[in-house]
Amino acid sequence: MKQLNIGIIGAGRIGKVHLKSITYNVPNAKVLGITDVFKDGLQALADEYGVEKVYDSYKDMLLDPEIDAVLVCSSTDTHADISIEAAKAGKHVFCEKPVDLTPEKVQAVIDTVKEAGVKLQVGFNRRFDHNFAHIKELINDGKIGNLELVKITSRDPEPPSAEYAAVSGGIFLDMTIHDFDMACFIAGSEVEEIFVNATCLVDPAIGEAGDVDTAIINLKFKNGALGVIDNSRRAAYGYDQRVEAFGSLGAAVAANDTPTNVTLMNADAVMTDKPLYFFLERYMQSFRDEMIQFVDAVQNDKPTPTTGTDGLNAILIALAAKKSLKEGRPVKISEIL
Amino acid sequence: MKQLNIGIIGAGRIGKVHLKSITYNVPNAKVLGITDVFKDGLQALADEYGVEKVYDSYKDMLLDPEIDAVLVCSSTDTHADISIEAAKAGKHVFCEKPVDLTPEKVQAVIDTVKEAGVKLQVGFNRRFDHNFAHIKELINDGKIGNLELVKITSRDPEPPSAEYAAVSGGIFLDMTIHDFDMACFIAGSEVEEIFVNATCLVDPAIGEAGDVDTAIINLKFKNGALGVIDNSRRAAYGYDQRVEAFGSLGAAVAANDTPTNVTLMNADAVMTDKPLYFFLERYMQSFRDEMIQFVDAVQNDKPTPTTGTDGLNAILIALAAKKSLKEGRPVKISEIL
Amino acid sequence: MKQLNIGIIGAGRIGKVHLKSITYNVPNAKVLGITDVFKDGLQALADEYGVEKVYDSYKDMLLDPEIDAVLVCSSTDTHADISIEAAKAGKHVFCEKPVDLTPEKVQAVIDTVKEAGVKLQVGFNRRFDHNFAHIKELINDGKIGNLELVKITSRDPEPPSAEYAAVSGGIFLDMTIHDFDMACFIAGSEVEEIFVNATCLVDPAIGEAGDVDTAIINLKFKNGALGVIDNSRRAAYGYDQRVEAFGSLGAAVAANDTPTNVTLMNADAVMTDKPLYFFLERYMQSFRDEMIQFVDAVQNDKPTPTTGTDGLNAILIALAAKKSLKEGRPVKISEIL
Amino acid sequence: MKQLNIGIIGAGRIGKVHLKSITYNVPNAKVLGITDVFKDGLQALADEYGVEKVYDSYKDMLLDPEIDAVLVCSSTDTHADISIEAAKAGKHVFCEKPVDLTPEKVQAVIDTVKEAGVKLQVGFNRRFDHNFAHIKELINDGKIGNLELVKITSRDPEPPSAEYAAVSGGIFLDMTIHDFDMACFIAGSEVEEIFVNATCLVDPAIGEAGDVDTAIINLKFKNGALGVIDNSRRAAYGYDQRVEAFGSLGAAVAANDTPTNVTLMNADAVMTDKPLYFFLERYMQSFRDEMIQFVDAVQNDKPTPTTGTDGLNAILIALAAKKSLKEGRPVKISEIL
Repeated sequence: MKQLNIGIIGAGRIGKVHLKSITYNVPNAKVLGITDVFKDGLQALADEYGVEKVYDSYKDMLLDPEIDAVLVCSSTDTHADISIEAAKAGKHVFCEKPVDLTPEKVQAVIDTVKEAGVKLQVGFNRRFDHNFAHIKELINDGKIGNLELVKITSRDPEPPSAEYAAVSGGIFLDMTIHDFDMACFIAGSEVEEIFVNATCLVDPAIGEAGDVDTAIINLKFKNGALGVIDNSRRAAYGYDQRVEAFGSLGAAVAANDTPTNVTLMNADAVMTDKPLYFFLERYMQSFRDEMIQFVDAVQNDKPTPTTGTDGLNAILIALAAKKSLKEGRPVKISEIL
Repeated sequence: MKQLNIGIIGAGRIGKVHLKSITYNVPNAKVLGITDVFKDGLQALADEYGVEKVYDSYKDMLLDPEIDAVLVCSSTDTHADISIEAAKAGKHVFCEKPVDLTPEKVQAVIDTVKEAGVKLQVGFNRRFDHNFAHIKELINDGKIGNLELVKITSRDPEPPSAEYAAVSGGIFLDMTIHDFDMACFIAGSEVEEIFVNATCLVDPAIGEAGDVDTAIINLKFKNGALGVIDNSRRAAYGYDQRVEAFGSLGAAVAANDTPTNVTLMNADAVMTDKPLYFFLERYMQSFRDEMIQFVDAVQNDKPTPTTGTDGLNAILIALAAKKSLKEGRPVKISEIL
Repeated sequence: MKQLNIGIIGAGRIGKVHLKSITYNVPNAKVLGITDVFKDGLQALADEYGVEKVYDSYKDMLLDPEIDAVLVCSSTDTHADISIEAAKAGKHVFCEKPVDLTPEKVQAVIDTVKEAGVKLQVGFNRRFDHNFAHIKELINDGKIGNLELVKITSRDPEPPSAEYAAVSGGIFLDMTIHDFDMACFIAGSEVEEIFVNATCLVDPAIGEAGDVDTAIINLKFKNGALGVIDNSRRAAYGYDQRVEAFGSLGAAVAANDTPTNVTLMNADAVMTDKPLYFFLERYMQSFRDEMIQFVDAVQNDKPTPTTGTDGLNAILIALAAKKSLKEGRPVKISEIL
Repeated sequence: MKQLNIGIIGAGRIGKVHLKSITYNVPNAKVLGITDVFKDGLQALADEYGVEKVYDSYKDMLLDPEIDAVLVCSSTDTHADISIEAAKAGKHVFCEKPVDLTPEKVQAVIDTVKEAGVKLQVGFNRRFDHNFAHIKELINDGKIGNLELVKITSRDPEPPSAEYAAVSGGIFLDMTIHDFDMACFIAGSEVEEIFVNATCLVDPAIGEAGDVDTAIINLKFKNGALGVIDNSRRAAYGYDQRVEAFGSLGAAVAANDTPTNVTLMNADAVMTDKPLYFFLERYMQSFRDEMIQFVDAVQNDKPTPTTGTDGLNAILIALAAKKSLKEGRPVKISEIL
């Protein structure tokens, strides 16, 4: 099979993750070219991974007929526009989350992609995590019966800077958006209504920036199930990423991943590893697997496993969350669009 | 020290638990007498445990000057009246939860007890559970820093009959009341506001009886922490009773208790025990320890570890929960009284 | 059913354990009398537990026609003689382990008991432990297929004094004897051959007293299975008591018991409880259950669950272990008698 | 830094593992050439991984001045001769275990390598396993005090064919050799004496071929510590690979690795994953890391982490194990050479 030539737009943290995954672990694909608004170290990065082409701008990349697909890993505010341009240029698009902070623009991406007849996958990598994907399999196999309740624990090891919090669109669009998608994925349903119980306990600067850092988020799914997410911007013991699904016949519960399975026992305590520190450690396998599936979807003309609609749904829930927090009441997703 | 002579009013399931505990495991106390509106088997029960006196009615028991304290284990609707009469008769009172379904009557009990100068303890036995008491200790010792979030998982192994559900006052007054008290205990704070996300997924008959069987309950504590309880009237894998407390320096998490610590590994799976089946298995140690502390409080004139105010708070939260469910909005506890 | 009247001979640590168990937790039995060579505090002990009779000597107890059965909890060197006298006096006998340090005397007890037509149970309490009894059940139910290998981890929290070690008969007769019995119990077989790999690593004084404190003990069972026991007189993290059984279809593995199931997670580590500290904490349930079964065997004329032969077998293995250590070679049990 | 050009001799299962690891996960190295006595599919394999050269024989590879180092992944009986030739040709050598079944030949490899001034690393990959390497770190950091006892559980998921067992040199040279090296690695000491307790319980054909399939192996280390390994050629629940290290201050214990950390709870049981199925799943990370360290040792002229002496020691222990089994007595390693 012809190798898929991929161009990466944006060589920051997540762009590098994909560059490394594709180079080493994705069959039938290579990173042919790369581009970034920051030129520093870009050529060296390309050399390190044997990337042939370094483009001055993403527009140059989109003009290159050798490029089959692009990964949009640039800053959030450029995701939608670049995705639209890429689709119009006939490139398949893998777009990091969130696609945009407004539903209108996300819809525009969806529409353009459809029109252009290219693939679109949104970077909800956690769906590919070995633990969470296994819970989904167990549910699909009927192992827990009819799904009744989804519980997601999602806590970052340490808070972002207040500056970052301010421009990120807030915790729901920046952090919880992954959990919203996970909730829908596990529940197998869109969300009907949301209620947010949140406050600022971790860093007063986050509160001054108008955001919260500790939240309990309630979900009513369209299929009748209930859901709850608890978030914190700080967990002293490290990145806490757990999912529990309860059904009529049982439950499936994912514990955290750890570096080792070693227990140390001494006069003080019985000690095991803390969770893997943060998303680069915890979710590396999922970043690789989402890319393998993206390449597979493009090359074999399959549906992408995460779609523009998934991206849109997560945004809508996040906006409803903001509204619920502001107005102190449950908000239906239908109130947003 | 003089042995405390206890009278048990109501020899149903929970009355028998206390009878057994006191007889076998509580120093400095004995069950001197017993009474019940159902006379069947009562004398045999007394004989089995060496209880000297079987009274025709609780009123006779209250007249007996040898009785120092009574356990009110009768049906819920009689708790408050009997407690008031007992206090007026100069007996110390241990009252099963809930004290009453109306805050006014609970307050009347509190007032009468205070006037009479007797002790009142309310049967929130779970505070004495080895796991949950240890979490509280860890919090008190500063091991998790400032408390930020409390999570309680509380699922019964199987639903009650719809008839029971109908007369029980509903899930919040019947089942969640324990969790409300646990939440306040762990948080070290009263509740400010509650929001309920609930539905009927387990048994339609419960829904027809006007109740719910699956719920996610949000709490804002007066001290600024957040809380969440998830309830189900049915867990196929058994009684699921877990508490998690998150703070600025860490977290304390209680797993379920199991009959053994044996793992069976075969070609199919790696298997461990299901949780202890229901409250009589799971909480036996806590029933014993609450009684030890009640006797200690009476004999050494200490404050009881759970008070009438605790009982009142739990009722108020439960009533606020019902209101929140009915009105589909967050409800402040202050709206109830 | 008539209550069984029990006399306890020896009111030391283990005598008190049984006194408490019978008083509070064993139906159909009571401790009628007690005796000890040390008179200090004996009457107070009797008063505390409502024991009616305090005998000057065990001989007086054996003369009392009201006594149905005795528990021989005196010092090891008196076990056999007292058991023999008790049997001759027509009393059923529960004898603490080891019955004696010589097989001849153990055999004499077995013979006398048989002749007298009384019951004899030997205090291998660990067979009644919830974890180990459950492993045995799983084996009996065919859950691991044909048993192939038994592994026992048995480590005391701290070493005895060298003085104690010197008079105890050595680690194999004092400590490992429990593990020898457990190995035979789990394997469902007597031992054919033993090899000992042992040394003194914990306390040089133990070595100077002629004993070892760290050992790996190999067993060949008569049924063809293999076994291994590892012992240490000190485990810094507490009492380590684990059993693993491997068979053709799987394995059953018992982890340690802990005071709670709480996990504390902070910036340093993820911590769980250390094992229950020592045998009085770890095996209390088994002490109670062996007594319940003893009473049941006597009252309903059933075989006792642990017999004189079990006691004899354990002694023979222990003596073979000593021989193996001394001679540095595998020793057949048949070499001992 | 100049990339290390590696030639792989033998493209069977383990040769392919290294080919894949080096291609995708080892910086500064590439597989330049490959050779095998079986030509079928060799060119296709080379093409798949972009290997430039396919040699007719390993002798051709050794003549190629572009090759810096070779991996000896051929059949065991050729390991030593090829390693010697490679060293004489000035190539650095990574040799799979066992180097040879005779100590003399292993010594010849060691001598030749020394003379030639090239590096030699032996394929004891398990030392690089995340769990076991972490135990070693904890020991080195003093976390468990003075090491007293090492326990290794090592059970294959299913037995090899009797034919394979017959030519493999027997379980000790074929399977346990990894555990012997692990024992020495964890103990930080060579072995002084060994005693084997073994039998044939899994497959009678293995017994007929003169081998055993179930074993408990006792070790006395030169530093005074004790060790025990239990082996089975079959574990119905999958590959059981655990290590426990006990010391004066505590213990470090490694549990099995599993595909996920998901627990499924239903009316039947609480279930977790079985261990990763076999060495290709379980030890993939260690295969990669041993290669990274080999390349690092060569390029930066460091000592290799596993040496010819490690290979020799393991062979000596394995031969002593065979002698112990045959003669039914403990055997000193010094008896072998």
